[in-house]
Amino acid sequence: MVGKKLINDPEQVPLEAVEGLVAVNERWLRQVPGMAVVVRRGMPVPGRVGVVVGGGSGHEPLFTEFVGVGLADAAVAGAVFTSPGPDLILEAVKAVDGGAGVLFVYGNYAGDNLNFGMAADLAAGAGIQTETVRVWDDIASAPAADLEDRRGTAADLFVIKIAGAAAERRLSLAETCRVAAKARDNCRSLGVALTSCSLPGSKRPVFEIGDAEMMVGMGLHGEQGMETVPLSSADEAADVMVGRILDDLPLAPGDAVSLLVNGYGSTTRAELHIVARRAVATLKDRGLVLHDAIVGNYCTSLEMAGCSVTLMKMDDELTDLWGDEASSPGFATIRVAP
Amino acid sequence: MVGKKLINDPEQVPLEAVEGLVAVNERWLRQVPGMAVVVRRGMPVPGRVGVVVGGGSGHEPLFTEFVGVGLADAAVAGAVFTSPGPDLILEAVKAVDGGAGVLFVYGNYAGDNLNFGMAADLAAGAGIQTETVRVWDDIASAPAADLEDRRGTAADLFVIKIAGAAAERRLSLAETCRVAAKARDNCRSLGVALTSCSLPGSKRPVFEIGDAEMMVGMGLHGEQGMETVPLSSADEAADVMVGRILDDLPLAPGDAVSLLVNGYGSTTRAELHIVARRAVATLKDRGLVLHDAIVGNYCTSLEMAGCSVTLMKMDDELTDLWGDEASSPGFATIRVAP
Repeated sequence: MVGKKLINDPEQVPLEAVEGLVAVNERWLRQVPGMAVVVRRGMPVPGRVGVVVGGGSGHEPLFTEFVGVGLADAAVAGAVFTSPGPDLILEAVKAVDGGAGVLFVYGNYAGDNLNFGMAADLAAGAGIQTETVRVWDDIASAPAADLEDRRGTAADLFVIKIAGAAAERRLSLAETCRVAAKARDNCRSLGVALTSCSLPGSKRPVFEIGDAEMMVGMGLHGEQGMETVPLSSADEAADVMVGRILDDLPLAPGDAVSLLVNGYGSTTRAELHIVARRAVATLKDRGLVLHDAIVGNYCTSLEMAGCSVTLMKMDDELTDLWGDEASSPGFATIRVAP
Repeated sequence: MVGKKLINDPEQVPLEAVEGLVAVNERWLRQVPGMAVVVRRGMPVPGRVGVVVGGGSGHEPLFTEFVGVGLADAAVAGAVFTSPGPDLILEAVKAVDGGAGVLFVYGNYAGDNLNFGMAADLAAGAGIQTETVRVWDDIASAPAADLEDRRGTAADLFVIKIAGAAAERRLSLAETCRVAAKARDNCRSLGVALTSCSLPGSKRPVFEIGDAEMMVGMGLHGEQGMETVPLSSADEAADVMVGRILDDLPLAPGDAVSLLVNGYGSTTRAELHIVARRAVATLKDRGLVLHDAIVGNYCTSLEMAGCSVTLMKMDDELTDLWGDEASSPGFATIRVAP
C-alpha cells in the first residue's frame, strides 16, 4: 500500500497544495502569484513586525497552514523535505515587511539555515532588517551540550505561536525575537515512529522498520533515531517520551508546562489522546502544573505513523503571550467558555 | 505495517481516548465518570435545547471532539465501529437536558437507529422530550429514490454545526430539529478509499484493495462501495466525487454551496488541499457560488487513506446559522479578519 496518494504531479505537490489552501481560505489568505508562498491578507501593516516561517513541504499543516491571526504572517513551502530557496523566502519577506523588520522562524536544518541566511542577506540588501529564531527542540538529534545541533520538530508550533502573539502586540523586532527565542529555549520534543512514509511519486518507504518495532527519536525526514525498540503500549511510549524530555529540560515541581502531543500523519486522534492521557497523568505525578495541552497533527512527516511529545516550560511572559488568540487553517486556539 | 497502533488495550480505546480528550480540555469538557460520554461544561442550561451526538468510535474527531461552542453539547462514543448502547446515550441526555428537550444527530446506521431510538424511549420515560435527525448524505449507499436508506458520513459535521448554532440561539426543539433536518436534506457526500484500515488489536485489513486501485463510495466501516477503479490523479478523483454529487443534488447556477473535503485518516493535508483546489475550480466552472470551504480530517475511518467531498446547498437561513462561531477540539471556525 506504500505510495498510494491523491496527487497529480509529484513535482507540483507543494504549489498545488498552496493553491488549494488559498482557494478555500481566500478571505484571509493570498498567494504570491505562481509561488508556494502564502501571505496573510492585510499585510504588510506599517510599523508592525512580520513573522515569516517555512521549510520543506510534507509536514502540513506546518508551515503554510499556520498563517493567520496571532501566528505567522507568511509561509514559504519548499519541495517535499527540501528547504525553499532564498528567492522564494525573499518574496515572503517583501510581502509582510511594514518597515519594522521581519522575524524568521524555522527548523534547524542545514538547507534551511543556508537558504534563510541568504534570504536575510538579500533582505538586508533591499533595506529590510531580519532576525532569526532556529527551532532546535528534538532531544534525539544531539546531546544537551550541543543544543544548537538539534533538529527542529513540533516545537515550531509553540515558537510560531509566541512570535505571532508578540508581533500582533506590536512588539519590536528585537523583542519579538527575544520572546520567540525564549519559547524555543524552553521547548523539548521526542517522538516515536511506527511506520515509514513514502515520497510523492515513489513506491519505496523512506526508511525500513519491522512490524513489531518502533523507532525512538526518528526524524521528520527519515533521519536515524536514538534506537529501535519493540513496539510498546501507548502508555509505555508516552513514558519514554515524557521521561526523556524531563531528563533533558530543567524543571522543578510547581513549574508550569504546556504540552503538545503531535501526530506524524496516520496515527489516529484516538491514539494521540490515549498518549496524551498518560502524558498528562505523568506530568501531574511529577508535581508539574499543566498550563495547556494541544493534541493533533501539527508537524507531520507525510503519512508516517507515530507521534511526538513536546513540552514548553512556561513563565509569566510566555503564559501571557500564550493566552492571546490564534486562528489559522492549521491551528486555532479553542474558545469554549465554561 | 497493518495494525501498528499506539494503544494499550484494544477494548479500552474509546474510553481511554475520551479520558485523554477530557484531560487536555478539562476547562471546557467533562466526562460522565467511567463512561465514554463527553459533556460540555456549563450544561444543562435551563430552557435551552441540548444537542447530543454519537456513534461508533474510529471516526475521530467525530463525534466526541465536536462538543463545544456552537456544536454539540454532549457526545457518546461506542466501541470501534459499533453504536453506543441506549444507557450510555441516556446519560448524555440527562447531562444536557435543561427542560427544553434534546436533539439527537447521528449517522443513519441500523445499530445507531435502534439504540438512539431506545434512548429516546428511555428519555421519554424520564420526562425528557427528544427529536432526531439521522444524517444520510452518502450517495454511494442507496439511490436518490431511497434517500432514507443512505448512510451518514462527513455531513455529520455540517448538520451538527447548524444544530449547534440553532441551540445556542435558544431556538425551540422543533425549530432546532427543523433547521438541522434542512441542513441534512441539503447535503450530499461521496468518497474514494485508497487503503484499508485495521481494527485496534487486529493485524488484518478491514477490506482488500489492490495497490493500483481505489474504491469509489467506500463506506466508513469497510462497506462495499459503488465500484473499484484504477487509482487516478487527485483531479480525476475530485471530478468523480464532485460530478456525481452534482448529478444527485439539485442545484442551479448561482446557487451557493459549502464544501467539505474530508480526509479519512492517513491522507495528508497537502493531498486534501490538492483535491479541494480542483473541487473549488469545478464548482465555480459550474456557475455555483462557494460560500465556505473546510478541509481536514473530520470524519475518519481509523487510518484509512482517501477522502470524501461533501456539498451543502445554502439558503439564507443556513447561511445565517453557518456564520455563528463554532469552537471545539475537533473543529473551530476560523476567525482571521482581513
